Amino acid sequence: MGLNLTEYINEKQLLIEEEINQQLNKLMIPDQLKESMQYSFTAGGKRIRPILLIASYQAFRHDFEKVLTTAVALEMIHTYSLIHDDLPAMDDDDLRRGKPTNHKVFDEATAILAGDALLTYSFEIISEDPLLTNEEKVHISKLLSKASGPKGMVAGQILDMEAEKSPVTLKKLEEIHTLKTGELLKFGITAGAYLGQASEEQQRYLNDFSYYLGLIFQVQDDILDVTGDEKKLGKPVGSDIDNEKSTYPSLLGLKGAINKKELYVKEAKTALKKAELVESYLYLLTDYLTQRDH
Amino acid sequence: MGLNLTEYINEKQLLIEEEINQQLNKLMIPDQLKESMQYSFTAGGKRIRPILLIASYQAFRHDFEKVLTTAVALEMIHTYSLIHDDLPAMDDDDLRRGKPTNHKVFDEATAILAGDALLTYSFEIISEDPLLTNEEKVHISKLLSKASGPKGMVAGQILDMEAEKSPVTLKKLEEIHTLKTGELLKFGITAGAYLGQASEEQQRYLNDFSYYLGLIFQVQDDILDVTGDEKKLGKPVGSDIDNEKSTYPSLLGLKGAINKKELYVKEAKTALKKAELVESYLYLLTDYLTQRDH
Repeated sequence: MGLNLTEYINEKQLLIEEEINQQLNKLMIPDQLKESMQYSFTAGGKRIRPILLIASYQAFRHDFEKVLTTAVALEMIHTYSLIHDDLPAMDDDDLRRGKPTNHKVFDEATAILAGDALLTYSFEIISEDPLLTNEEKVHISKLLSKASGPKGMVAGQILDMEAEKSPVTLKKLEEIHTLKTGELLKFGITAGAYLGQASEEQQRYLNDFSYYLGLIFQVQDDILDVTGDEKKLGKPVGSDIDNEKSTYPSLLGLKGAINKKELYVKEAKTALKKAELVESYLYLLTDYLTQRDH
Repeated sequence: MGLNLTEYINEKQLLIEEEINQQLNKLMIPDQLKESMQYSFTAGGKRIRPILLIASYQAFRHDFEKVLTTAVALEMIHTYSLIHDDLPAMDDDDLRRGKPTNHKVFDEATAILAGDALLTYSFEIISEDPLLTNEEKVHISKLLSKASGPKGMVAGQILDMEAEKSPVTLKKLEEIHTLKTGELLKFGITAGAYLGQASEEQQRYLNDFSYYLGLIFQVQDDILDVTGDEKKLGKPVGSDIDNEKSTYPSLLGLKGAINKKELYVKEAKTALKKAELVESYLYLLTDYLTQRDH
């Protein structure tokens, strides 16, 4: 842990973005498709998921090369999901991170196809990764498809849409977020630990850790929609209230939501302690995600 | 080859449909998502691609179990592509095979997500297939992602949309079809041959065969849009002409298109001869695809 957290994050962001560029640049495909696939990466992003994956791996190993392709595949899946989420038939968002969404720059058909292409390509680059054994490729491909498919992220998306029509309980809200956001974060943590050859016990505790981290991530999102700075967020605040959407603050009040977040932070850190990983960047990243302002 | 072709096709259709049902039924996911994923399978389909895969495998082996999951994954990818193609932002089709399209029965958001889910789930079932070795899973996953992703089917879809805006040459038309339709058909043939442990030489000839088969498939589609029976097709004929779309008949005349098809059939059969596979169902399926009326 030679770097402070900001240095660590900046260094890894750069690494990930360079690798994404390389993976996309080498594609010999129609310009319109390539530009649309590239656009949603150049339009920003904190690269939280791939950074968590690398940090989880580096809690056990010194290098990062071994997980770089998997980290990029994860960011591609995340990006495809944003492109599809923003479509008129879904959330109908014109802006993301302060910039026009994919279908506003290109068109809806291209945005749908760019999302499909990123999703499919993520499995291709895993199958082609020269640093993974066949056993590792199969296991990563299995974890990633489960996390992002009908049992994971896509199920969360469907439930989230249903929840917009009527208020939900806190329990239901947590189920939705665990699927919609948590599963991909969990993939980052568990794939990193698996490739880092963590012990089975450590992998189990990291599984718990990732569960709470997913919830922290979402409570903070909900809190920022109430207290955040539009400029930093790159999107209007208060949209959840306008849409009468069930959120942690709407169900628990702002103070209750903050208390809930602190509880999750405690649980996440307890899991890290049990895994004997308090001296890792995962610990610092927990605080970072708890306090983030965008 | 104990069964005649019709018996062979019927038996394999049943097998594939039972396996699709099983793979979808076991999903513990939100009802809306599951029903939408199931709907587009129950709404019909000739299962050409998975049948070609099984026939290609059975040119070398007696069983079919080894390739059943791969065959189902292929049909899931094909089905997802139809669901997304039919969306208002794409082809805007209300009917497919005489039945309402997915987004007409459910809604656009659900149809987008059902497509995403089928695409992702196809990679999950390959990674979980108990009958494949890790090496085979990785190879199949690689072939399938390449055939269906940005270098394959999705590229073809983008080029097809661009071609609708202005007339194209015959060469361009063939490039589009090779990507949009041919790549998935080719996957069926090559994946079957690979899992059947065909010799490298045979795999090379089957690659040529599948190229011509893809073109035959598309010329026949174009011809049926001119000469077909609406009832059998389950969709209106003449829509290509109405949309001023470049097709084989529009570029070569109906007679020219039929001649072209015959030329491709000759090439396909020559490739099968070189692979020493004239005594396989692939030979009969070539005639079947050449003469199909829907």
